[in-house]
Amino acid sequence: MESSNVAVVVGVGPGLGAAVARRFAAGGYKIGLIARREESLAPVAEELRSRGATAVGSALSAMATMPHAVVADATDPASLAAGIKEITTKLGPIGVLVYNAGSYQPGGVLELTPEAFEANWKINCFGAFLAAQHVLPSMLARRHGTILFSGATASRRGSARFSSLAVGKFGLRALAQSMAREYAPQGVHVAHIVIDGQIATPRASLTASRAPGPVSPTMLDPDAIAETYFHIHSQPESAWTFETDLRPSVETF
Amino acid sequence: MESSNVAVVVGVGPGLGAAVARRFAAGGYKIGLIARREESLAPVAEELRSRGATAVGSALSAMATMPHAVVADATDPASLAAGIKEITTKLGPIGVLVYNAGSYQPGGVLELTPEAFEANWKINCFGAFLAAQHVLPSMLARRHGTILFSGATASRRGSARFSSLAVGKFGLRALAQSMAREYAPQGVHVAHIVIDGQIATPRASLTASRAPGPVSPTMLDPDAIAETYFHIHSQPESAWTFETDLRPSVETF
Amino acid sequence: MESSNVAVVVGVGPGLGAAVARRFAAGGYKIGLIARREESLAPVAEELRSRGATAVGSALSAMATMPHAVVADATDPASLAAGIKEITTKLGPIGVLVYNAGSYQPGGVLELTPEAFEANWKINCFGAFLAAQHVLPSMLARRHGTILFSGATASRRGSARFSSLAVGKFGLRALAQSMAREYAPQGVHVAHIVIDGQIATPRASLTASRAPGPVSPTMLDPDAIAETYFHIHSQPESAWTFETDLRPSVETF
Amino acid sequence: MESSNVAVVVGVGPGLGAAVARRFAAGGYKIGLIARREESLAPVAEELRSRGATAVGSALSAMATMPHAVVADATDPASLAAGIKEITTKLGPIGVLVYNAGSYQPGGVLELTPEAFEANWKINCFGAFLAAQHVLPSMLARRHGTILFSGATASRRGSARFSSLAVGKFGLRALAQSMAREYAPQGVHVAHIVIDGQIATPRASLTASRAPGPVSPTMLDPDAIAETYFHIHSQPESAWTFETDLRPSVETF
Repeated sequence: MESSNVAVVVGVGPGLGAAVARRFAAGGYKIGLIARREESLAPVAEELRSRGATAVGSALSAMATMPHAVVADATDPASLAAGIKEITTKLGPIGVLVYNAGSYQPGGVLELTPEAFEANWKINCFGAFLAAQHVLPSMLARRHGTILFSGATASRRGSARFSSLAVGKFGLRALAQSMAREYAPQGVHVAHIVIDGQIATPRASLTASRAPGPVSPTMLDPDAIAETYFHIHSQPESAWTFETDLRPSVETF
Repeated sequence: MESSNVAVVVGVGPGLGAAVARRFAAGGYKIGLIARREESLAPVAEELRSRGATAVGSALSAMATMPHAVVADATDPASLAAGIKEITTKLGPIGVLVYNAGSYQPGGVLELTPEAFEANWKINCFGAFLAAQHVLPSMLARRHGTILFSGATASRRGSARFSSLAVGKFGLRALAQSMAREYAPQGVHVAHIVIDGQIATPRASLTASRAPGPVSPTMLDPDAIAETYFHIHSQPESAWTFETDLRPSVETF
Repeated sequence: MESSNVAVVVGVGPGLGAAVARRFAAGGYKIGLIARREESLAPVAEELRSRGATAVGSALSAMATMPHAVVADATDPASLAAGIKEITTKLGPIGVLVYNAGSYQPGGVLELTPEAFEANWKINCFGAFLAAQHVLPSMLARRHGTILFSGATASRRGSARFSSLAVGKFGLRALAQSMAREYAPQGVHVAHIVIDGQIATPRASLTASRAPGPVSPTMLDPDAIAETYFHIHSQPESAWTFETDLRPSVETF
Repeated sequence: MESSNVAVVVGVGPGLGAAVARRFAAGGYKIGLIARREESLAPVAEELRSRGATAVGSALSAMATMPHAVVADATDPASLAAGIKEITTKLGPIGVLVYNAGSYQPGGVLELTPEAFEANWKINCFGAFLAAQHVLPSMLARRHGTILFSGATASRRGSARFSSLAVGKFGLRALAQSMAREYAPQGVHVAHIVIDGQIATPRASLTASRAPGPVSPTMLDPDAIAETYFHIHSQPESAWTFETDLRPSVETF
């Protein structure tokens, strides 16, 4: 359905968020980008725009529409609502939501302030709930949609000094399970991807001429991760993945 | 060590909280009780008092000290801090913390308000973090202590329409894991008990003459649960349980 | 590497085994097929042959080599060794192994004979160990290869009256984990796919003109499953899946 | 019921098997012991006898009946049947079964022979199935009984070079789940204890004067483990544990 040809990534940086946006753009999706800081959005939007321009007239012409980037705080209901509304107005109803925001403050339970503990949870989990609330109604109305949550090692293991991350990531997984069980029979594919390792974030600028180059073998290449995101999105209703893990071949687990 | 002979239950009602308090009192502990509402505390405190009076001169004389009950909101840092300080002043440093507060609002993701989603998380998870921060310093100083978290079916499974519970209970489990991995080597026993079923809460008043009577076979008897809490607390350092599950024999799982 | 362009499916029937063979054949692989009964192999081999013939001169010309089907018992070391040797001689060293054999005898623990209990384990787990032993040496020598294990709901849950299946499927998952941890750093991608539902096995003949047609929404379409097998096989070393689940959108889990 | 006051331990050595026997003997049970080698049985039986003699006239007089030790191979249906029959004839119907046999051969998948792979599975899993088949009928007739399975770290994690252990231990866990789901509603308490660490096995002779002495803090004291076995056995039907873990406070997990 043309009107759902919109994918929104919440939590965009130079790593996985950018790679997922690239992959869905290459797959013909109009892209909405949300991040808290303009600096995070600008280079990703710019890269997508230059790729889109190059692609006009080619097989990727479906991507002719420029990406739409919005600064919004995923943990603030009003800010996120405004951001998603702006994207929907510009691009149309959202068919794919990727929640990729995350936050980790290292430290033992006695080293974290209550404010920090709560703030981390809000980024890792609460924002996903808010974002889902915005996109679900139109997905349910169309009985079609995909919601992908970025998990981590800490989604299934609460390591020492990782509670600021694990509490939210466990919660995100619980939310994903609840949503999958509630909405899958109604046509919305909810999946949770456990990224079990460190993502190689390019330090260099993300330009159209970006050469991916060799990624450290101990880190996950964000474009490789994004390929699995897109695969899960592409699965027919007959065989949906709820959860998959991803790690470098050399990663200990 | 005499000075750590204090057990505090956060989240006291007529069911499990009361039963755990009874069990630790019977085991010689001075009991601190925390709940948000006076009505939840009064009957439990009264029951413990009358049992304690009866016990004077008996094997339970260690329990001669009366329980101390405090109204406090476990999700409010200042309120909980005041409550725990009051108990510590009255009874001494805390040797056992049982976090038993919980909250569940049934409903799909679109039926919950952001405020409700957050409020439930605060009761199910955030309050446990706050309570742990208060008791850990003296436990670590003594290299001795027990922290028990009450989990639920929703600690390991996010069912449809259960996100308000599962997000917090998954988070609580993450917190418990992080704490166990951080503090067990320092002498603090952190355990998570998955209560997989409905707890039979006595409707009748909790008096000293309370006859437990037959509990529905489909529900968990809170006194039976409390026995396992006390067993885990009693384990020597050589063989500590981190997680156990409990359910009625007839419960499907 | 040309010489590893061989995929072998152990446990071939009209359902998933056939679909996986089709998918890897379409991906340019030479296909080896192993099953205990000639009747299971013949229609699948025939379908692949007719597709291959059609494909000659097309993009699929890599599949020009005809499939090689061998009757062998995966639980019998000598029989399986002979079967795999025959395929290797005909097609070359094996680059992809899919272990898809499975067996389930419904019944409580008192209804199963020791012989049946053991026989089921041998099909569900022991045969996978044997098959892996045959393909690993050349994979390790090339530092390249893929081994995919077909799991089931019973891989992670031992239901009442399912011990004949669950014991072997849990064991298969343990084997897969051990192998992934041992061999992934040496370039062999080991993955375990949890198929959480019933696979729709076509009753109709599998001919080249087979129209997949609508599959029951409560069952998994084997071709959809096979697509995810191929995707996992195609992942770059930087982001490998060890475990994924698959179920129909309407499946309760 | 007097006639079910018999506990049988299959897989007895100087470590956990001996400790579990001691604990149930102290709890008033008549003890049956099964091991493959006479050398494993003799010192344990001797220790129990001397304790029993001492206990005559004391609170432990219920243990006046001497333990009965039988050499049998748990993986051989006929041998195990004979052993259990002998114990039942001497002591009466079995009320508690503890399956504690285990076997591990270190090595990668290419270093294990098919014979070794199968032999390990038979000890770790198949023998438990056989033993359960022998004790279940009378337990079900009385609607009362306890079956405890000794798990290990490898019950939930297939580490590299651990497949010989993990395949059987995963399988044992599957069997335990199936049995718990099938038989708990009929009054038989099936539980699985994950022993997550190395058990300190006394090298010294096990005599009545045995002083437990300090156990290495990195190892589990078998008597401490046995205490939890007995606790689980003692749980009322209203709150049964299916699975618990045990590890030393200093163990990394």
